[in-house]
Amino acid sequence: MVNETQHTCSASSSSKSDGGSSSGGESSKDSSRCSTPVLDADRHERLREKMRRRQDSGDKWFSLEFFPPRTANAAVNLISRFDRMGAGGPLFIDVTWHPAGDPGSDKETSSMIIANTAVNYCGLETILHMTCCNQTKDDITGHLQKAKRLGLKNIMALRGDPTGEEWEEEVDGFNYAVDLVKHIRNEFDDYFDICVAGYPTGHPEAESYEADLRHLKEKVFAGADFIITQLFFRSETFLKFMKDCQAIGITCPIIPGIFPIQGYHSLRQLVKLSKLEVPQEIKDVIEPIKDNDAAIRNYGVELAVTMCRELLGSGLVHGLHFYTLNREVATTEVLKRLGIWKEDPRRPLPWAVSAHPKRRVEDVRPIFWASRPKSYIYRTQEWDDFPNGRWGNSSSPAFGELKDYYLFYLKSKSPREELLKMWGEELTGEESVFEVFTCYISGEPNKNGHKVTCMPWNDDPLATETNLLKEQLEKVNRRGILTINSQPNINGKPSTDPIVGWGPSGGYVFQKAYLEFFASSEIVTALLKVLKKYELRVNYHIVNVKGQNITNAPDLQPNAVTWGIFPGREIIQPTVVDPVSFLYWKDEAFALWIEQWAKLYEEESPSRMIIQYIHDNYYLVNLVDNDFPLENCLWQVVDDTFELMN
Amino acid sequence: MVNETQHTCSASSSSKSDGGSSSGGESSKDSSRCSTPVLDADRHERLREKMRRRQDSGDKWFSLEFFPPRTANAAVNLISRFDRMGAGGPLFIDVTWHPAGDPGSDKETSSMIIANTAVNYCGLETILHMTCCNQTKDDITGHLQKAKRLGLKNIMALRGDPTGEEWEEEVDGFNYAVDLVKHIRNEFDDYFDICVAGYPTGHPEAESYEADLRHLKEKVFAGADFIITQLFFRSETFLKFMKDCQAIGITCPIIPGIFPIQGYHSLRQLVKLSKLEVPQEIKDVIEPIKDNDAAIRNYGVELAVTMCRELLGSGLVHGLHFYTLNREVATTEVLKRLGIWKEDPRRPLPWAVSAHPKRRVEDVRPIFWASRPKSYIYRTQEWDDFPNGRWGNSSSPAFGELKDYYLFYLKSKSPREELLKMWGEELTGEESVFEVFTCYISGEPNKNGHKVTCMPWNDDPLATETNLLKEQLEKVNRRGILTINSQPNINGKPSTDPIVGWGPSGGYVFQKAYLEFFASSEIVTALLKVLKKYELRVNYHIVNVKGQNITNAPDLQPNAVTWGIFPGREIIQPTVVDPVSFLYWKDEAFALWIEQWAKLYEEESPSRMIIQYIHDNYYLVNLVDNDFPLENCLWQVVDDTFELMN
Repeated sequence: MVNETQHTCSASSSSKSDGGSSSGGESSKDSSRCSTPVLDADRHERLREKMRRRQDSGDKWFSLEFFPPRTANAAVNLISRFDRMGAGGPLFIDVTWHPAGDPGSDKETSSMIIANTAVNYCGLETILHMTCCNQTKDDITGHLQKAKRLGLKNIMALRGDPTGEEWEEEVDGFNYAVDLVKHIRNEFDDYFDICVAGYPTGHPEAESYEADLRHLKEKVFAGADFIITQLFFRSETFLKFMKDCQAIGITCPIIPGIFPIQGYHSLRQLVKLSKLEVPQEIKDVIEPIKDNDAAIRNYGVELAVTMCRELLGSGLVHGLHFYTLNREVATTEVLKRLGIWKEDPRRPLPWAVSAHPKRRVEDVRPIFWASRPKSYIYRTQEWDDFPNGRWGNSSSPAFGELKDYYLFYLKSKSPREELLKMWGEELTGEESVFEVFTCYISGEPNKNGHKVTCMPWNDDPLATETNLLKEQLEKVNRRGILTINSQPNINGKPSTDPIVGWGPSGGYVFQKAYLEFFASSEIVTALLKVLKKYELRVNYHIVNVKGQNITNAPDLQPNAVTWGIFPGREIIQPTVVDPVSFLYWKDEAFALWIEQWAKLYEEESPSRMIIQYIHDNYYLVNLVDNDFPLENCLWQVVDDTFELMN
Repeated sequence: MVNETQHTCSASSSSKSDGGSSSGGESSKDSSRCSTPVLDADRHERLREKMRRRQDSGDKWFSLEFFPPRTANAAVNLISRFDRMGAGGPLFIDVTWHPAGDPGSDKETSSMIIANTAVNYCGLETILHMTCCNQTKDDITGHLQKAKRLGLKNIMALRGDPTGEEWEEEVDGFNYAVDLVKHIRNEFDDYFDICVAGYPTGHPEAESYEADLRHLKEKVFAGADFIITQLFFRSETFLKFMKDCQAIGITCPIIPGIFPIQGYHSLRQLVKLSKLEVPQEIKDVIEPIKDNDAAIRNYGVELAVTMCRELLGSGLVHGLHFYTLNREVATTEVLKRLGIWKEDPRRPLPWAVSAHPKRRVEDVRPIFWASRPKSYIYRTQEWDDFPNGRWGNSSSPAFGELKDYYLFYLKSKSPREELLKMWGEELTGEESVFEVFTCYISGEPNKNGHKVTCMPWNDDPLATETNLLKEQLEKVNRRGILTINSQPNINGKPSTDPIVGWGPSGGYVFQKAYLEFFASSEIVTALLKVLKKYELRVNYHIVNVKGQNITNAPDLQPNAVTWGIFPGREIIQPTVVDPVSFLYWKDEAFALWIEQWAKLYEEESPSRMIIQYIHDNYYLVNLVDNDFPLENCLWQVVDDTFELMN
């Protein structure tokens, strides 16, 4: 009777995802999901505790609902959106359950895998929806076990649509959401935080508003931790509902579901599915402008902002849940106008922290994957322990196979034609490659007038921090030092520094200068002679695709290259240059030449052979200047090298 | 027949230990016994590997032999000597086996316990002598098991003196050192490094020089790792012996035993016991000056230096073993003149590293025991793991009971009368106590003209580093801020800095300013008001004897207050302020008022009641200034406190 999937309005909506793939960088998220020693309050908190703490502190929050995409390309876009919208600091996101889309499968577009990506790769606290209608107990237990294994800790327990007309209650079956709640608590004890749906105007199929409230109370008393409501159009609707819930003894958090109207058609479809009544005054505004998407969206934003202000102003509401329809603009606009979008998300660590419970203590990573954090997370997902405090020199376990690496969410966001425009339809020699690297750094268009906004090793434009080195990087790339990773030295900047800062305020952050690049064997020969002069000061690792390895690193010790000192804390050293993992990274870095670049061209074509030549003959080099309080000497090392060659 | 205990000349010598108890500080030792991640080469090396590495690098070394003392007071003096002579960088020390002195017992003067102290508390690589004659297999196995349990890794296997005239070989018994070597290898596999004795002129009881060489070869082939020789008077004696050994196939290291002649009587007694012939030319010099100790010692030093130079100059000798007779002056003089005494011992960490194999990875300690490292080692000896990389906030296991603490080697080196002179025969009020603290800091004599060279919390004079703060410390002690521990802030000094440096060269060391003191409740009340102004910048813990605890430390997180950044290394943070262990330290710090100070006076005496009053009513305070790059604000905090009180 109680049809709860209607609640998940966005899941049944056919709205197209917004196609833009503008990139935003891997900025880390706010404290709502920090799992590092730096920010302890959140370290081992579960979602319901985070909610309670925000309520106690009066810190308003928001959450975002997404539905699984239909295609792998749309999935790549959705994940970029997770990163960008995650930067605004949602307390959590949720991913709807799509019964028609094989939601518990390993498909790249399944609800399960999208939620897995959000938690593990984007570091977002995530709720996975799950419906129980027409499913066996074993199926459901299987899904829940899988969710647990993937690091998901929160379930939205729903009934789902009965299939077929003649649906009847099954004895001992899963007939209602409450059965799923009970099942989760029976089988998984207190492992999951459970959310259930609430209907501010009563469920359309319920006998009455009061009966629906009683159903809700049953779900809560069966073990649900909080409630998210179906959308509504007037704040009074929600506030009355909330009071009615409290009157019958529901005391858990009740989070209003906010639906910013984004277009005429999506609104109509939603209303049809959810059987909600759109108030006449809204219809009156929308009908005359129904063909003007921008106008409708502006109106929808205005309406949502007004309603949210009323809700927050009531003092009864601490968080707002947004039905995004997988779109960014309207929701982001509402959040910014409400002032609860984090404009300057503090980073708990210099890199994005994964939200998998297993990785909670992780606070050290090799620098090599700085621009490919998802690849690092993927390749280390089988680890039982994650380094914290110290990387250690014998503790780095095996990295996942490179072959696993070409998973959809690690692929470039750009299509082949775009890449060819950026990296050259036809290469004429190694110099054409130098030019591509140089244009990526400089931001200038290449000789065909196209800007180079990504590289095989870096799917996003240059990081702000790297911009500090732009001039020197441009100069050396032009001459064949093909840089793929670098950081400037930092001698004690405040942890709140907008570019290089991370961790709690009141601290100081430090870095050793780092430079990583591909270079020809001629350059490497000269470089090695020059490096003799810098012995002790500069540590280097030089390796080619065959694994020939030249280094002056003592033993196989890692070198800490980023660290922070904070009030009342132990020292955090989140980035290291680790000799062992460098050899794993080397495989990946060389493979990217072929897989992402060479394969754009016909086999046997000159362009392909040029890339293949570089792959076969160049060296991958990393340099660390240990004297972080002095001026970075790595540019001098490179200059000396070129001078020696002349 | 082969009486080997003669080898251990010092064990049978009755020479009195030199009585001085001048104190030298807890300086750490050279790389020969480092067990920290900073200096990896030595990290897990056993003695024979260290020897081999020194031989390969051409780095000459020395070792020192001591015998167990007769009284507890002499033991306290000997341990101070270990610390002072350890600072010169011996590759190892050895402790002789004293069959008459219950050598395997738990007595404070037993060979076993002295060797245990050398390893665990003084951080010295140590060889324990062991004899087998007239002992059962079970006895011997028991001794070896105990040695292993205490962290001893090296045994000098000797036969020992047969007791009684009618000694006969026992069938299957321990008749010769070779039996002990075999037994150790049988029962303990390769756990121990084994040393055996060699006789450059042949053992006096051996059938012949050649027969003695064959016995030596048997011992080596049974599993000995190296040989230390009986003393000799001419370098040719040793060099011939070495060639003869090599000629019959002995290839392990052979270390010459050097005996600097220190006095007429000790030489005579030694010669009698060892049945050695003193060359006529030496007798000719000594006889006329036999009553002039200084003259004999000067001659002995001269003789030893000449012989050692010949040995080292031969190119065949890499290390020298000194029979110290438990005295310092002559041996130190010889070593200094040879240039192999380390004048500036590099510290691997800011505190003395214990040489127990279990503690090899230890590189973090609470700052509180900085002046009482032996107490810290003692109280943590039951730990299974030692913190490294990070102290962690839930990882500090239980500290040993305070009652165990009054062990002889944790007692003050000074007798009661001396302490009364320093700390006051009669106290007239709290101000008398302030004066004692002030005089300790200033180095000025107290009003009765006695210098205060130690305090209950610090058995040694002020550390060089603390001298940097002397002026301010003196000022605040005068007013009742009774300081017991402090360090200045350091913002990146070279790791080779003679005062605050530690770890390998090429690094930078840092510190947060720290101040720990006792103060009255009036001072603490004002201090707490002042600290509100310094919130975030200054972390504090304030506790009284009853355990009332006031702090602004986040959670129970430790605060790193000393750390170092080194080329090609992870960050080392050897000192932390840990809230949990502070409460253990608090018990110790308060108990010292009573046990070391109050108990000097009669019960019910006014002096005793003054100390008891302070014990009962004062607070123990620690302050950390987190803003290490700025000027230390802790003095301003104290000034503000006094100003508020006026």
